[in-house]
Amino acid sequence: MNEVLRKGKLAKEASYLLQTLTSKQKNEALYNIAQQILLDEAIIINVNKDNLQKGKQLGLSDSILDRIMLNSERIKAMSEAIMQIIELDDPIGETLQTIKKDNGLLINKVRVPIGVIGMIYEARPNVTLDAAALAIKTGNAVLLRGSSSALSSNKALILSIHKALQPTIVPNHAVQLIEDTSRETARELFQLNQYLDVLIPRGGKQLIDSVMKESTVPVIETGAGNCHMYIDEEADLNMVEELVINGKTQRPSVCNAVESLLIHNTWFEQYGKQLLSKLTFHEVDIYGDETVRSFYNKAKLATEEDWGTEYLELKISVKIVESLSEAIEHINQYGTRHSEAIITENKENAHVFLNRVDAASVYHNASTRFTDGFEFGFGAEMGISTQKLHVRGPMGLEALTSSKYLISGDGQIRN
Amino acid sequence: MNEVLRKGKLAKEASYLLQTLTSKQKNEALYNIAQQILLDEAIIINVNKDNLQKGKQLGLSDSILDRIMLNSERIKAMSEAIMQIIELDDPIGETLQTIKKDNGLLINKVRVPIGVIGMIYEARPNVTLDAAALAIKTGNAVLLRGSSSALSSNKALILSIHKALQPTIVPNHAVQLIEDTSRETARELFQLNQYLDVLIPRGGKQLIDSVMKESTVPVIETGAGNCHMYIDEEADLNMVEELVINGKTQRPSVCNAVESLLIHNTWFEQYGKQLLSKLTFHEVDIYGDETVRSFYNKAKLATEEDWGTEYLELKISVKIVESLSEAIEHINQYGTRHSEAIITENKENAHVFLNRVDAASVYHNASTRFTDGFEFGFGAEMGISTQKLHVRGPMGLEALTSSKYLISGDGQIRN
Repeated sequence: MNEVLRKGKLAKEASYLLQTLTSKQKNEALYNIAQQILLDEAIIINVNKDNLQKGKQLGLSDSILDRIMLNSERIKAMSEAIMQIIELDDPIGETLQTIKKDNGLLINKVRVPIGVIGMIYEARPNVTLDAAALAIKTGNAVLLRGSSSALSSNKALILSIHKALQPTIVPNHAVQLIEDTSRETARELFQLNQYLDVLIPRGGKQLIDSVMKESTVPVIETGAGNCHMYIDEEADLNMVEELVINGKTQRPSVCNAVESLLIHNTWFEQYGKQLLSKLTFHEVDIYGDETVRSFYNKAKLATEEDWGTEYLELKISVKIVESLSEAIEHINQYGTRHSEAIITENKENAHVFLNRVDAASVYHNASTRFTDGFEFGFGAEMGISTQKLHVRGPMGLEALTSSKYLISGDGQIRN
Repeated sequence: MNEVLRKGKLAKEASYLLQTLTSKQKNEALYNIAQQILLDEAIIINVNKDNLQKGKQLGLSDSILDRIMLNSERIKAMSEAIMQIIELDDPIGETLQTIKKDNGLLINKVRVPIGVIGMIYEARPNVTLDAAALAIKTGNAVLLRGSSSALSSNKALILSIHKALQPTIVPNHAVQLIEDTSRETARELFQLNQYLDVLIPRGGKQLIDSVMKESTVPVIETGAGNCHMYIDEEADLNMVEELVINGKTQRPSVCNAVESLLIHNTWFEQYGKQLLSKLTFHEVDIYGDETVRSFYNKAKLATEEDWGTEYLELKISVKIVESLSEAIEHINQYGTRHSEAIITENKENAHVFLNRVDAASVYHNASTRFTDGFEFGFGAEMGISTQKLHVRGPMGLEALTSSKYLISGDGQIRN
């Protein structure tokens, strides 16, 4: 039997044990993991150096190498994140609904683990640990398949996890890594309906698109973020400057960074030049519509493609709109349903924007950069869902649960 | 532009209006539909007769013809179901969670419509009406694609619905029927990610399998039901007879009917022959394991295939087990995660069974036939989900909703 099938079967078996564990038993396992990775810090960093060296030889970009890199500080942060997950309430077993029927049937809807979670991800070895911790906390088994660029680091982390689980009731098979990182094992995971209850991709657009297209296992899409800020007629100039610069430049490579500005024409006439100059000062390239170009000659002309582009670098598209409705329609057409913001002092306009824009997180007078499981208080996250089924936005513990109806009777039959 | 693309685009546009409607506006539309189909009863029944006649000529089975058939009683029942949906609380706008951050950000998670629901179904024209009513109540647009065998009936129902919507604020495009019932339009729906937020198949295994396999639009699987009853050592004979006969024979063609019995060996030694004779008396064919066969010569020998078969007719497989654990493992291996039951007077065993069996609905001392949106108090249902993501078990109003984070600030930026 090949690796994927074998580990899938073991994960399924482990999931039946995991669903019966108490919060105390699961937290003990998490505590051990949080401690073990600190103990193994030197080994992990050493192995990680190998990954970085090979990555450099292969010509990986600095931003990818940065994602692969583990140092003492990052390992401490991962350990602390696990300690925080221990503190969170265990959602498993919660009664979500109780229905008493006239015939005496008692129907209880309770929260249960999903079962086995498949995770396909790129570069970042911290996902290995976050996913393992969130899965154990929610009584799920997890089958991890990282990328070849971080394989040794992922293997070292799994070794630490298994060492930590040894004295606990949580079996090693609760957390397994697929060590064959060929394209073939990804394809096998796509079709592993027999053992996987869900598949979560984390990585670039290409990875996510291929999972969405090829997987018959139910997928949670953690999509791209073509995030907009709409500057309304009654927006405060200072606030606009702070939010736009924060949204665009604080960390341009992430999915909740701002990619496009929509500016009301009367606001633009008064303050547009000042805002655009500030962006230029922060080394942001501007791709504007005809109006923007005619007012600000450093702007390049935006093409139709720009409105739909997630730059992930210091570039921004800028469009002038004549109304709130035009802004909302533009966002609903070009947005990726991730994070969208309005800046305005007009409460009625804010209310309309929040309710009519179709996205996981919609902001009034705040930076889109806050869309993040940690910022929302979930301890960590399995990614940010941009689909509407099951979970939307940052995925915390509840996203890894399902429900089940338990029905008790004394011989009721249906007529 | 072809029919699917054109109607998909119109549905998306309608969904943006629908999400802004009040409960009163949606209920007025539902009330008009409930009244209109009563007014149009004669037309609908007349058109339905055509469907039935053509169906007979094509040699459709009696059970399929029965599903297609509409009479005065059924139209009244459909109208009453809509009146019941009006009475249900509107889930849209409900605040699901409130998070206040130290930096002053206020995060509200609210319930919103999904958007556009695609529905592919076979035969039963009542699905047209149930789906339309549940969708309108939850502020969703719905794109319906029924089968050719019920096309005229579906068209007549849609005409009534559109007549009913005319004086209301709900646009006709909220409920549309794809009139081209070729295989091609089904395939187009599978790939309509641009406009569809979810696709729900309702029908036979072949339809559901092809949707699961080919659709890139997120699917809610409404799967088959290979439902078991486990008769524990301490089961009451009278209750067993009532529940088994009800589960197997009251309506054998539906997904929550019992397909397989697991019987504890000590119970079987004492009462087995009596139970099996009763099944034979009710014209149920028995497919048993070696033990069953040796005790009861009317039983045929079950093959490995029988354990995984949803008969949907008067056949049942019977296996003798030596323990509760063996029963649970068998169910987790061969079950389809739909509805499973234990019959026992032993509360501890019932508890273990309810918690360890992996299914949407797990029963203690009651018939599996109760797994149904109407029986659970949901008014109607969009089907019964056998997957673990988003919704599990009968799908009522909440299954047709998503959520969204609305975040209010006064200029917060991320550091």
